[in-house]
Amino acid sequence: MTNRLHRVIAAFALGCLPAIAAIAVAQAVASPVSQFTLTNGLEVVVIPDHRAPVVTHMMWYKVGAADEPAGKSGIAHFLEHLMFKGTKKNPAGRFSKFVGTIGGHENAFTSSDYTGYFQRVAKENLKALMEFEADRMTGLVLTDDVVKPELNVILEEHNQRVANNPGARLGEQVQAALYLNHPYGKPVIGWRHEIEQLTRDDALAFYKRFYSPNNAILVVAGDVTAEEVKKFATDIYGKVERRAEIGPRRRPQEPQPNAMRQVTLADPQVRQPSLNRSYLVPSIATAKKDESVALDVLAQILGAASTGRMYRTLVAEKSVAVNAGAWYQGSALDMTRFGVYATPRPDVSLTALDSAIDGVIDDVVAKGVTADELERAKTRLISDFVFAQDSQTTLARWYGVALTTGSSVDRVLTWSDRIRAVTLEEVHAAARQWLDKRRSVTGYLVKDLVREDKRS
Amino acid sequence: MTNRLHRVIAAFALGCLPAIAAIAVAQAVASPVSQFTLTNGLEVVVIPDHRAPVVTHMMWYKVGAADEPAGKSGIAHFLEHLMFKGTKKNPAGRFSKFVGTIGGHENAFTSSDYTGYFQRVAKENLKALMEFEADRMTGLVLTDDVVKPELNVILEEHNQRVANNPGARLGEQVQAALYLNHPYGKPVIGWRHEIEQLTRDDALAFYKRFYSPNNAILVVAGDVTAEEVKKFATDIYGKVERRAEIGPRRRPQEPQPNAMRQVTLADPQVRQPSLNRSYLVPSIATAKKDESVALDVLAQILGAASTGRMYRTLVAEKSVAVNAGAWYQGSALDMTRFGVYATPRPDVSLTALDSAIDGVIDDVVAKGVTADELERAKTRLISDFVFAQDSQTTLARWYGVALTTGSSVDRVLTWSDRIRAVTLEEVHAAARQWLDKRRSVTGYLVKDLVREDKRS
Repeated sequence: MTNRLHRVIAAFALGCLPAIAAIAVAQAVASPVSQFTLTNGLEVVVIPDHRAPVVTHMMWYKVGAADEPAGKSGIAHFLEHLMFKGTKKNPAGRFSKFVGTIGGHENAFTSSDYTGYFQRVAKENLKALMEFEADRMTGLVLTDDVVKPELNVILEEHNQRVANNPGARLGEQVQAALYLNHPYGKPVIGWRHEIEQLTRDDALAFYKRFYSPNNAILVVAGDVTAEEVKKFATDIYGKVERRAEIGPRRRPQEPQPNAMRQVTLADPQVRQPSLNRSYLVPSIATAKKDESVALDVLAQILGAASTGRMYRTLVAEKSVAVNAGAWYQGSALDMTRFGVYATPRPDVSLTALDSAIDGVIDDVVAKGVTADELERAKTRLISDFVFAQDSQTTLARWYGVALTTGSSVDRVLTWSDRIRAVTLEEVHAAARQWLDKRRSVTGYLVKDLVREDKRS
Repeated sequence: MTNRLHRVIAAFALGCLPAIAAIAVAQAVASPVSQFTLTNGLEVVVIPDHRAPVVTHMMWYKVGAADEPAGKSGIAHFLEHLMFKGTKKNPAGRFSKFVGTIGGHENAFTSSDYTGYFQRVAKENLKALMEFEADRMTGLVLTDDVVKPELNVILEEHNQRVANNPGARLGEQVQAALYLNHPYGKPVIGWRHEIEQLTRDDALAFYKRFYSPNNAILVVAGDVTAEEVKKFATDIYGKVERRAEIGPRRRPQEPQPNAMRQVTLADPQVRQPSLNRSYLVPSIATAKKDESVALDVLAQILGAASTGRMYRTLVAEKSVAVNAGAWYQGSALDMTRFGVYATPRPDVSLTALDSAIDGVIDDVVAKGVTADELERAKTRLISDFVFAQDSQTTLARWYGVALTTGSSVDRVLTWSDRIRAVTLEEVHAAARQWLDKRRSVTGYLVKDLVREDKRS
């Protein structure tokens, strides 16, 4: 039962980065956010929210697939699964059973930059929860008896999410072709031939190297005060040994992109061809000044459902696509992605659609956007942001993502102000500089390689 | 002067892998080849050749760009340059001056799999030469005074060979898009932004880890006997400390290729558009049975100048190209490349040429080759091989490459027999299995991105 539960859990984050990143953040509607650090290095963020007597508790580790040793892709995600296999104090299943018994929810997720563990419970259970999470921060016990079956769970997850999903396979290929040198080119779930070789020793080595309070961030949102959390966290997490010295997170960086790339994946399962393009662009952490908020605005102007440039031009005006959009993955420690995508009408070739997308991008690069578009985009982004804060989980997530990807609480708090300050020229400059086709990989998803290959 | 000399020297191997690999080998015309290993682990190959009183002396290290630490691309090649910077016993310049004074030649080269140092001198100088080479195997002294200027030499080499050479830049991009996970995707010279950061400490760490007699192969060809070389090598190289324990050379391997890729590089310097395609295929070391000799034959049948399928079909019959060919890089420790290339006639688009190449490949995949083509290819390969043995340097090189890329003296010796044994069905099977477009990256070199991009 744990395995089954866990599989669903892990699905939460793996591969849904754009969705996460599209949500950037600003001032919390609720009480002020507190931040402090325990003497063992654990950072703590508290987001009071007294609307209901519940708390959201998240432990974030500053480690993800991009931190994996060469040849061990998938180990970050595999370890995330294995973290449910118990400790000496709390054998396998006890933690999950506790959460279930008190009517709580739990979850876990892995990305290229972070790994996180999440629970949502009634406030009176917070301390007990912390005891469990603190225990498994350094107390994990792994035997081959539990590791080997879990590897099969992961391989089955790979079958479902990647091997039998042509769109996901194309996504992997586009990402690998975009990142020529940086480990973001590896799939978070891992390359299958490397997953198959992962061992208990690999998992334990990774765990010991990266799971330590000085490499973690505790985020607690809900019906608590900063004082309460500080007391509990000091009593419970404060006792966890700082067992690893964590160096700076330096990954091999990308060379200057200089060639336009195209990847075509054909699979008989494909019923509907589609096209997606990624550009290599700055993230919140790597951007100069507020370039990343200009990219947030640009993605909104290009990509907004039914009102963005992509939709208006390709679906409404030219009738070459049945849907079209854009996104920007702002949260990343290193250079990140700006994406555009579209699905052609049945009688339109991907090549023709590709040219039509070029037209939309070329136009923005040449002429920028209008004042009206800019205002509408800002209004929409800020209003989405305000509504999103209604979710305690979303709030907690924002801070966890920010602090594991080189951003900060302050940047989250000031996001809406910075969005408001974006100018027409900044949006235009971002388009000119970053939506350069030499920085891009375009993926074609087709049923039949030969037909599309000829690009007639 | 040393720098200038050395720059030319380094140019020898960097980037000319296909040329090297196209030469595979068989029975030596001259006396039998001897092979033995010293107690410190140094392997020695002796190829007697008494036509002239000269010897070719090569020290090969089983380390190349694919063995570099993440983020340190270019360090193997940088170290190759720095190996000319002197030791305590022989300060900078003395070794090269010795070779020059006695009228000899010297050379050095770096590839993804090996690094080598070469001299050709009158036979009476062999012992003195060995003293120099043995001394720098572990005695290299590096100071920032010599390291920093040499880094500028390397960056200038990068300017000349890559940055100002659109074809080379496209080659880098094609290779990076072909290898999604394996370090063969990195350029041997390194990514420029990483070269710029290389330090003395990086070079020394790499040197200490990989330069040790048990990771080296001495190849001596020329007017010597195995007994003489054995005596000299034991006396001189036998004293070099075995200072590193070398593990197996395991690099991250490629996932199963599943998407056809295309890379377009545009540069105003391009006067003549061209197209090249690489397929991911087995090397001598990774092939099952004699698949690699079948690929040698297939490359010859497709690629032979003026008589190969590529030339005959694209240049002679269809008049869509002004040149066309194919090659196979058999020597590689891991999965390697099979390439086809062509230059279009001025009025032919790269897309049209690409389709015409597909036609040539599809035909071989569908129908195989003819008995006549097979015989002509074998005759040509074996005759080229016999002529190539006329060069002492070539002979020595064959063994050095073989022993640093997972092949063997025996495989070199039996190559022509194995070529003779290749069947029509083996060539057809190799084409069917490996010339699958999903395994390939096609590079377009164009003057102007926009025009070719539309692929009209």
